[in-house]
Formats: sequence, structure tokens, C-alpha cells
Amino acid sequence: MNFRLQSTDPRSAARTGILSTGHGDIPTPVFMPVGTRASVKSVEPHELLEQEAHIILTNTYHLYLKPGNHIIRKAGGVHPFMDWHGPLLTDSGGYQVYSLSELRRISEEGVTFKSHLDGSMLQFTPENVVDTQRIIGSDIMMPLDECPSSKADREYIRKSGELTIRWAERARRHFSATAPLYHHPQMLFGITQGGTHSDLRALSAKALVDLDFDGYATGGMAVGEPAEEMYRILELSHTLLPEHKPRYLMGVGTPENILNAIERGIDMFDCVIPTREGRNGRVYTRKGKMNLRSAKYAEDFSPVDEGFGNHVCKHYSRAYIRHLLNVGEILGLKLCTLQNISFFMWLTRTARQRIEEGSFLEWKAGFLEEFNRGEA
Amino acid sequence: MNFRLQSTDPRSAARTGILSTGHGDIPTPVFMPVGTRASVKSVEPHELLEQEAHIILTNTYHLYLKPGNHIIRKAGGVHPFMDWHGPLLTDSGGYQVYSLSELRRISEEGVTFKSHLDGSMLQFTPENVVDTQRIIGSDIMMPLDECPSSKADREYIRKSGELTIRWAERARRHFSATAPLYHHPQMLFGITQGGTHSDLRALSAKALVDLDFDGYATGGMAVGEPAEEMYRILELSHTLLPEHKPRYLMGVGTPENILNAIERGIDMFDCVIPTREGRNGRVYTRKGKMNLRSAKYAEDFSPVDEGFGNHVCKHYSRAYIRHLLNVGEILGLKLCTLQNISFFMWLTRTARQRIEEGSFLEWKAGFLEEFNRGEA
Repeated sequence: MNFRLQSTDPRSAARTGILSTGHGDIPTPVFMPVGTRASVKSVEPHELLEQEAHIILTNTYHLYLKPGNHIIRKAGGVHPFMDWHGPLLTDSGGYQVYSLSELRRISEEGVTFKSHLDGSMLQFTPENVVDTQRIIGSDIMMPLDECPSSKADREYIRKSGELTIRWAERARRHFSATAPLYHHPQMLFGITQGGTHSDLRALSAKALVDLDFDGYATGGMAVGEPAEEMYRILELSHTLLPEHKPRYLMGVGTPENILNAIERGIDMFDCVIPTREGRNGRVYTRKGKMNLRSAKYAEDFSPVDEGFGNHVCKHYSRAYIRHLLNVGEILGLKLCTLQNISFFMWLTRTARQRIEEGSFLEWKAGFLEEFNRGEA
Repeated sequence: MNFRLQSTDPRSAARTGILSTGHGDIPTPVFMPVGTRASVKSVEPHELLEQEAHIILTNTYHLYLKPGNHIIRKAGGVHPFMDWHGPLLTDSGGYQVYSLSELRRISEEGVTFKSHLDGSMLQFTPENVVDTQRIIGSDIMMPLDECPSSKADREYIRKSGELTIRWAERARRHFSATAPLYHHPQMLFGITQGGTHSDLRALSAKALVDLDFDGYATGGMAVGEPAEEMYRILELSHTLLPEHKPRYLMGVGTPENILNAIERGIDMFDCVIPTREGRNGRVYTRKGKMNLRSAKYAEDFSPVDEGFGNHVCKHYSRAYIRHLLNVGEILGLKLCTLQNISFFMWLTRTARQRIEEGSFLEWKAGFLEEFNRGEA
């Protein structure tokens, strides 16, 4: 058993657990910083550890294109390649094929697409995506899925969901028929699809549960639908997914989305918000978001989040970071990114503590009130 | 006495010493990384300490424009502003006025120029440049000088050198008439000018020595003249400058320039090479320069400099850094910068050790042979 449930909130579906991998244990709920191209932008692995990051995510699509499987295989996988020795999750690349590449053509076999880098024609299949993730050596692999647009009609989503199930079956079979290339075990999660249609989500969840994955992701969310629709799907999924397997909400999200999803039983999250917004000078604090590019911080020598106690708040002032951003110094982007990673790690770590103490819902309400009233 | 001479090379003018400041002792010879806008580009202060940087340089001109004296004064100086608690040297801004600003007009009073940022008209005088450096709180201040082009004729250089001496006198007087704003002492160095004209350099050096500065810089070098001309001026300066004061060669330079200048009695160096070339993927190793953007390192999993033992070489491979540069990840620039800072700190630290051991010239010859034969 890779996942051990530790405590559950008596008044919601929130829960804590430990997900064990060949690179260490992950306390859940957990937020996973995104390191698309084998680098969490501007930050070194030892700095991620200092922010108490337990697991990071890299993107199969990007790594497949550059540096490519050949180089990653020679490196002995992404862990030694990037010097990250903690747990690593890779997405399947499916989402990136739909969002980044051109001329994609989906068939029963897989998806053919034009590389957004050099225009070459490439194909992802459920099998070769598992092979690539064997080469990457991620602790947690995701199977190829199709992620339909939130504007797709019910019929498209139904057919797409069925294809994703057949692909999941092939991925599951190929995963069982192949072995890790390095000296650590790998897990394979399933990804439910079905848009915001309860019956299609239920079909998807049931089929995937029958295939017995190591964990279950909810895919195709936060693609434009109202948050309430997403919460409804999470509540439904909660009744369908096995209690003793980890649950991952892909690509989510804001602090509010994350806490509402934790309340609905989600254990794992990833999102580009901390890194992407950090690069734009937007920082997250317990009292709300701030745009540190603003001139109003030019003479504000207080820390980004007074009393937060992380590296950035202990060493630098708002005025200094604002100066760095104002004159285009790279260090400004890096410090904002570090602050945001600290914040998101704090968010899920604190949620975990509050669930264990039985005060999750009260804490969540109080935190969100203060956060939303904040300085943004 | 701020400077204590420790050992001298019996076969050259090379020497070691300790320069004491209110923020700590600096073993010399020493290389000073450049942090133009109160940030050594892409690197945090604690990382500079980890590379054994003893002192850094920031630019008066840039800080005067942004964030400006008002904000730096409110911050309590640049040390707390940027969280650097080691020794800090500031140039006078004179060189930047000549190289960056437009419409500069030099008069007896000072230099009037148009800001390269917003076009406003500003004036630097020997007195207000001292005042600005009082506000910055640098441990070592430089007086306003004029740095003529290497193409200037002898008559221009003569007149300019005389003006620089009169400005130095005013700076010295203003320095004595004012006090530090914070709780640490400040020093003021003199800057010799005179181009490559021995008699003008001698006049400049003698006049400055009479003014009794805390140390002496050779300015206006490495501006296009042949290296041999620079070495000749350093040899001349050696005979004119007091033995028990530190000597600083401004804006120099390559490893070869630095070692040849150490041989001629120079104690301090600053240069943008490690940071600027690092941002372009060029790294310095004991075996020569390398351009890590090159595809030839795509599958080279060895460290940048095998056995060098610094942070970058302990944790990352050439192939990984090449990948980061190849996909435009900020971390690539940062790792190259860190490598280069490590290298330049190693260079002057090793020179110091070899001078103390009495083997400086042999080591220098062997090192340069290997370095120049290298991978560049």
C-alpha cells in the first residue's frame, strides 16, 4: 500500500495521509511546484527543500521534445539530471499536446501532433508515454488522456471519455508489462474525464477504479468552468473513488480552489500560479496577493508577509524586491517565486495540521476571509 | 591602519594583506563581484558568501538614479537594503556618466549629464558624490574622476588628469568634513588617471599620495589600450604608491590580466566578466573557458570543472546546464554566474596562497598555460 490515510475531518471529506515513494514520503494534502523543463523556474532543488516542498512535477511533453529521451536516459533519469532527489510526478503530456501543439489528430492509436518547437510530426500513444515516463523515472506517472475543451458538447466529451478509458487500459497493461529502468519503483495514476457531466464522470471513475491504479486524478477541470461545477464533480468523485488511494486535482489552483478541494477529499495539487505569478512580481501572503511592482511599496521596508518566517521574509523587504523588479533584476523574479512556493507549501501544510487538529473548516473560513480582504 | 601587509613575493611585486573594514576583514589579493543595482545579478548574498566572496561592488550612478538616495537613506544604507552584511565598495559614478549618459558637460564644478533612464538633467560634483556614498554607506568610497577615452590625445588627458586631482582634493576635504551616517567607518580611495603617459600617471599618483587616501586605484585602464601598456603603468605606479596602502585596479579583468596585475603589486579587482559572461552561458574553469550553450555538451554529464568542488560542480552537469540554457531557463544563467564567481574567487584566493608559499610565479605560469590551452 503506497498511501496510508492518517486522519479524516468529521465535518467534511478533508483527510490527511502519507504517500510513500521510492524517493521519500509525502505528507498530504500537498501542493506540487511545477518544474516543466526539469527546472522549477529560477529556483534550485535545495531551495525547494528549504521551502519544504515534498514533491515536484515535470512535464513529459516538454522533456520529450527537449532534451529528449536519449539524453534523459543517459543521465539516468530526471532525478540525477536536475539534482532533485525527492519524489517526482510527471504528467502524460496529453494536456500540452492540446494546448501547445498544432495540427493534432486524435485516433484510436494515439495523438499525432506537430512539435511547437521545430514543427516535426510526433505521436504520443498510451504505450510510448509510459515508456517515456520510465525513461524520466518519475515516481508517479500519468497515462495519456484527452482533455477536451470546456466548450466541447456532451457527445464529444462522452466519446472522448470512452477513448481516454481505452487508453488508460492500454497504459495500465503496458505499465504492468514493463519495469522501472532505475533502482526505484514507479506508480501509475488514472485520470478521470467527463467534463462537468456527472454521469460521464461516474462512468469514467468506475472504469478506472476497475483498472486498479495507484491513485486517481481528476483531469479536465479548471479549464473555464465555474468553480461550483468543479466542486460538484469533486463531491461526486469522492463517493466513487476508493478511500485508500490518493486523489489528485490536476492544474489547480488558487488558494481558495485548493482549500475547497481539500474539503472535498483531494490530496494532491499542482499549479503554475506560484512560479508564473512570481515571475510577474505578484506574491502571495497570508493577508492576500500583492503586486510588488507597484510604486506603493517603494518605501515599504516591511517583509512581504510580516511574521511568516520563510527565507524571503526573513531577509528582504518589499522595497528591495520592488526595486529589483523595477530595474529588471532577475533576483526580483526569483524572490517572488520563492515567496509563492513557500506560501503554497504553507497552505497545504497548514491545512494538513488543521485537519489533524479537527479545526480545518474554521481555519479555512478565517484564512479565506483574511486572504480575500487582503492587499491585492 | 586599515591595511596590513602580510607577505611579499621575493621575485615580483606580488603581495598579500588584510584590508579591515567595519563589515569584516578582506584577505588580498581579492576579486570583487559587481552588483551594479544592489544585486549581483541572479545571485543572493548568502550564495556570494558560500562562494567565499569577501567584498562586493555596487555602482553609485545606478543607485543614485534608482532607487535614489531618498529610499537608500530610509533603508539605512545599501547593506541592510540588499541584505549584504560584508564589505561593500562603491565606484564614484564617474565612469558610468561617461559610458552611459548623454549630453554630459564637464566643468570645474563637476559633470552635468542627462540620465539614461528618464532624460532628466543631473549633476555630479566631488562633494555630492561623497554625500551619495555616505548615504549608500559603502565601506570603501571612490571620488569623482574623469575617465578619458583611450583615444583622447595627450593634451586632453593632461588637463583631465589635473581636473581629476582638483576633484580628488575637494572629495578628500568633503570626506573629512562629513561623517558616516550609519554605525560603521568609511574609507575613501584616490583614483590615478593619466592614460598610458608615464609622466602624467606619475604626476597623478604623487598628487594623490600627498592627499593621503586610504587606498589607491588605478583608473582609466582596460579601456582599449594594449595589455602591455597597462602593465607598464602598473609597474610605474608600484614605485610611486605607498607600500602600506591597498591598490585597486578598476574594472579588470580577465584571469590573465588579474594575475599579471597581482604580479605588479595590485591587491583588488572588480569586473563584470563573471556575471556578464555567465548570463551568456560562458563559464570559467581551471582548464579554460567553455560556452555551455554549445551542442557539444548536450550529452556531457561531467561537472563543469571536474574536482573543482564548488556548489555548481558538486550538483550539476554540463549537460543539465546546457539543457537549461538551450530551453531558456533562468536557472541556467544563474548557475553559470555562480560558477564564474566561484572561479574568480578561487583565482585570487589561490594567488594569495601561492604568494604566501613563495610559488606565485610558477603557479601563475602553469595555470595560464593550462587555462589558455583549454576548452574555449
